[in-house]
Amino acid sequence: MSDDVTEILGEADPTDRRTFLARASALSLAIPAAGAALVACSPGGQRRSDSATKTVVSGTRGEARQPHNSDSRLDSSVLKGEHRAGSSPTGSTQGGQSVAFQRWDPTLPPASTTGRVQLSWHAREAPVRISDDTVIAGWTFEGDIPGPIVHCRVGDTVEFTLTNDADIPHSMDFHAAQIDPKQAFRSVPRGQSVSFTFKPKYAGAYMYHCGTAPVLMHIGSGMFGAIVVSPREPLPAAKEFVLVQNEYYLADAAGGVRASDYQKMLNTLPDFVAFNGRPSQYIKEPIRVKVGDRVRFWVVSAGPSHPCNFHVVGEQFDRVYVGAPPASPLIGVQTFSVPPGGGMVYELVCDIPGEFPFVNHGFGHGQKGAIGILSVEA
Amino acid sequence: MSDDVTEILGEADPTDRRTFLARASALSLAIPAAGAALVACSPGGQRRSDSATKTVVSGTRGEARQPHNSDSRLDSSVLKGEHRAGSSPTGSTQGGQSVAFQRWDPTLPPASTTGRVQLSWHAREAPVRISDDTVIAGWTFEGDIPGPIVHCRVGDTVEFTLTNDADIPHSMDFHAAQIDPKQAFRSVPRGQSVSFTFKPKYAGAYMYHCGTAPVLMHIGSGMFGAIVVSPREPLPAAKEFVLVQNEYYLADAAGGVRASDYQKMLNTLPDFVAFNGRPSQYIKEPIRVKVGDRVRFWVVSAGPSHPCNFHVVGEQFDRVYVGAPPASPLIGVQTFSVPPGGGMVYELVCDIPGEFPFVNHGFGHGQKGAIGILSVEA
Amino acid sequence: MSDDVTEILGEADPTDRRTFLARASALSLAIPAAGAALVACSPGGQRRSDSATKTVVSGTRGEARQPHNSDSRLDSSVLKGEHRAGSSPTGSTQGGQSVAFQRWDPTLPPASTTGRVQLSWHAREAPVRISDDTVIAGWTFEGDIPGPIVHCRVGDTVEFTLTNDADIPHSMDFHAAQIDPKQAFRSVPRGQSVSFTFKPKYAGAYMYHCGTAPVLMHIGSGMFGAIVVSPREPLPAAKEFVLVQNEYYLADAAGGVRASDYQKMLNTLPDFVAFNGRPSQYIKEPIRVKVGDRVRFWVVSAGPSHPCNFHVVGEQFDRVYVGAPPASPLIGVQTFSVPPGGGMVYELVCDIPGEFPFVNHGFGHGQKGAIGILSVEA
Repeated sequence: MSDDVTEILGEADPTDRRTFLARASALSLAIPAAGAALVACSPGGQRRSDSATKTVVSGTRGEARQPHNSDSRLDSSVLKGEHRAGSSPTGSTQGGQSVAFQRWDPTLPPASTTGRVQLSWHAREAPVRISDDTVIAGWTFEGDIPGPIVHCRVGDTVEFTLTNDADIPHSMDFHAAQIDPKQAFRSVPRGQSVSFTFKPKYAGAYMYHCGTAPVLMHIGSGMFGAIVVSPREPLPAAKEFVLVQNEYYLADAAGGVRASDYQKMLNTLPDFVAFNGRPSQYIKEPIRVKVGDRVRFWVVSAGPSHPCNFHVVGEQFDRVYVGAPPASPLIGVQTFSVPPGGGMVYELVCDIPGEFPFVNHGFGHGQKGAIGILSVEA
Repeated sequence: MSDDVTEILGEADPTDRRTFLARASALSLAIPAAGAALVACSPGGQRRSDSATKTVVSGTRGEARQPHNSDSRLDSSVLKGEHRAGSSPTGSTQGGQSVAFQRWDPTLPPASTTGRVQLSWHAREAPVRISDDTVIAGWTFEGDIPGPIVHCRVGDTVEFTLTNDADIPHSMDFHAAQIDPKQAFRSVPRGQSVSFTFKPKYAGAYMYHCGTAPVLMHIGSGMFGAIVVSPREPLPAAKEFVLVQNEYYLADAAGGVRASDYQKMLNTLPDFVAFNGRPSQYIKEPIRVKVGDRVRFWVVSAGPSHPCNFHVVGEQFDRVYVGAPPASPLIGVQTFSVPPGGGMVYELVCDIPGEFPFVNHGFGHGQKGAIGILSVEA
Repeated sequence: MSDDVTEILGEADPTDRRTFLARASALSLAIPAAGAALVACSPGGQRRSDSATKTVVSGTRGEARQPHNSDSRLDSSVLKGEHRAGSSPTGSTQGGQSVAFQRWDPTLPPASTTGRVQLSWHAREAPVRISDDTVIAGWTFEGDIPGPIVHCRVGDTVEFTLTNDADIPHSMDFHAAQIDPKQAFRSVPRGQSVSFTFKPKYAGAYMYHCGTAPVLMHIGSGMFGAIVVSPREPLPAAKEFVLVQNEYYLADAAGGVRASDYQKMLNTLPDFVAFNGRPSQYIKEPIRVKVGDRVRFWVVSAGPSHPCNFHVVGEQFDRVYVGAPPASPLIGVQTFSVPPGGGMVYELVCDIPGEFPFVNHGFGHGQKGAIGILSVEA
């Protein structure tokens, strides 16, 4: 394999932003979307597609370069000659200032009872208000950050289709699937779709995310979520919630909307850290349960870079499933770390009423919004 | 809940120091103490309480703002109208240069034999010499960093009272307690006390810390320690030690004393990392045991941000308790990571004499002082 | 113990590069080698040994200072008066630009069948081409980064000798050994050797590394590798591979070769992250197995600072050995974090053909080269 591939994978010296941008440009990558997001939201509200969003398809070595999925090696051929993002009107983040804040419901939805889950999702750019004063130029699954919760059981059949509505290629990588990523997780250009089917083998809280290169940029811009796989033999009855931690690395606002900043992602110092996409949202509107409830948190650390040292103030987990529940839980835990890209299951019993904050106890980052409240009512 | 609360919690854009300071000022938070510490130790030794330590009680939106416990939501009412730190003489760090260095004894004290532990502690500012050439303007429990070791057994009754001698509010959060933090862990202003009682349910090495917002600042300034909970059924006889790892983020010295720097904490790049508050103290004065001893380290990672990848050079742990001992230990381990906010128990048997350094094997930070020596004598 | 020792250990304020360099110079440490590497590779190709590589043996306090092993306290006496690196011709990195790239074979070699492993290695400086356009001025065991894979079984006898061919002192610390580091892991000056023997007690993927102070510098410059200890009772038959993750912190190129940068190491923001020393090498030349194979990865995280959140795209681990295999594996895992200084064992079964990327899913660092492909052929 030529070193073009390494270059395509975006793994050249990542500290050199100019190199990255030059190459991203050569690859029709990142630049058009970042440009579009910024331009669409620029103070004047006018898109300058003639320059900022122009896609340079010819590479610096005199060859056409195409986007590529760093988690696979096939899709460059898929996309060859088909991707001309150019000046397409990615105005989906226009008017981002007017987007309303919406609490993200952490409740685990019921699992399918038919043994079959059918999903047809769209990858698209969308403005997402993550707090009263911050709107993100998101790269999303289905228009929100995180994407929708998927809930199924071990052995169910998940039929998934992704259609790409965005200018740059995207893809889908489910950590709950055992499948050839070269085919299933391949990148698709605007207007095209990819479909695949899988049967989750293990229970657990699994991450899904866009696997298109550079993966860091796609996860960091909002393309992630959780698929919860319950075991066939039900776990003890509980109030069940999903918490997906992620980091935001943001450029200055343009037109009231902040794009994601790849260089900041490489520097791994986030501006915000959030559960379910909105910093501190469950402070304002806590998660509510009753005394006597068992509570089960399916916690995914989407990263892109940091673990979630999950802790509930005033409580202790009676079990933490580090692998697939119900196998070998840890007993009696104050905090245990979910690695970026991972998921774990935390259980506690609410013996007493009160307000129990849950946090990422790595406070240097946790202080940036990875905090909420579990309200236990009598 | 209004967005004032989010603001009070100190979770606004943390990268904007001016915003933080402005808000901290509005909250009678951080500024007075930081100011006091700096001023008290300024070269001229003169306090300029008229400016640097002034507390602005009126918020920027025309309402009185009060300090608040980010781990709870109640205490703002507790404190309403009562906290006027203003120009009170927090001269507790004056004369810091003359404070002597004292090795922090890592020996686990015996557990109470009465089934009852009664603690009456004070939160106060104190200069702490952490090395020959560095004195910290500490925020402390009982005047030292870390605070005192607490040792009890599962099911014991711990009766705890905290009295706040400092200008800004403080609180206490025991990870070994299952209790409503809204009441028990609430912040108290200068001169007031909070009391609560709990019975530890699980064995383990648990962190305690001040939970007043911003928690990052309070942990980062020295308000943390370890409570060791032994199981009812004793673990194998061993020489038992407590190691609490923490990070220091320091401003330049003023009057020979260095205050903690909140922006550095948010940047997560510490100046020093230490076991039991003093970088490399157990190099100079090792922990000493005899050949044949089983050694049990109760390791707490206070953070505020980094894990402790605990390792003993020339040794291997025959067991590491990741959850509550004696449940499901890991067998045969070179290093395992204690997450920030967590605690684990590491055991080894000293078969041979020698000098065995113990380290945080994440050397980028470990090199900054998280190193000591276990001396095994024949 | 005097505070000279703390100074010798290199644990003074690590953020002050001048202090470090001054002390390193006083210690005949780091400076000469870094100087040699830089000078040897300077554009003109001429060594200026008269200045850059000069060793100052007299300390700043008027006493002779000697290199010291931070993992031990003895070797300063070993070296006293014997180390005069001075202007010795450490031209081993000269001509670095012409060094060819070589894929590092990740295949686990067979374990000794005699119950005995005899190793006689040399510590030496060597240029290592880690990618098409980057050559490192490496500090190495046996001339490569990582050093050679060692494979033995629990209870085997490992007889090891290290001879130091480099100007500055080096040493060897095997995490698989239970031995007095004060003797066995002591630093030796140029031209001298140290020998020791050990019998691994626990199975697992163990790190080895140079333990000479500052350890961060020695690991960060390339002196690390893996010793794999298989259990006496064989694990299930599998295709077995070794992956050692490390970070590179590099100064600008001088003469086409890049030296390691200690201040960057302290800042913990790497330029590259690699499996087996070369960023993305297994993208170009994948690891190849057949459908039906069980694959066992022995993963070591050499750091010096970051964990490896090991993940295989499109696959799930059916077991991860966090401690010594075959004890208590985790079942059904998407990713689990190997702490810096640690090692874990990851197993999966290749049920289907495809190309399965393996990554460090902490993408802020993983994106810098911790990625490869497992190709499963029909």
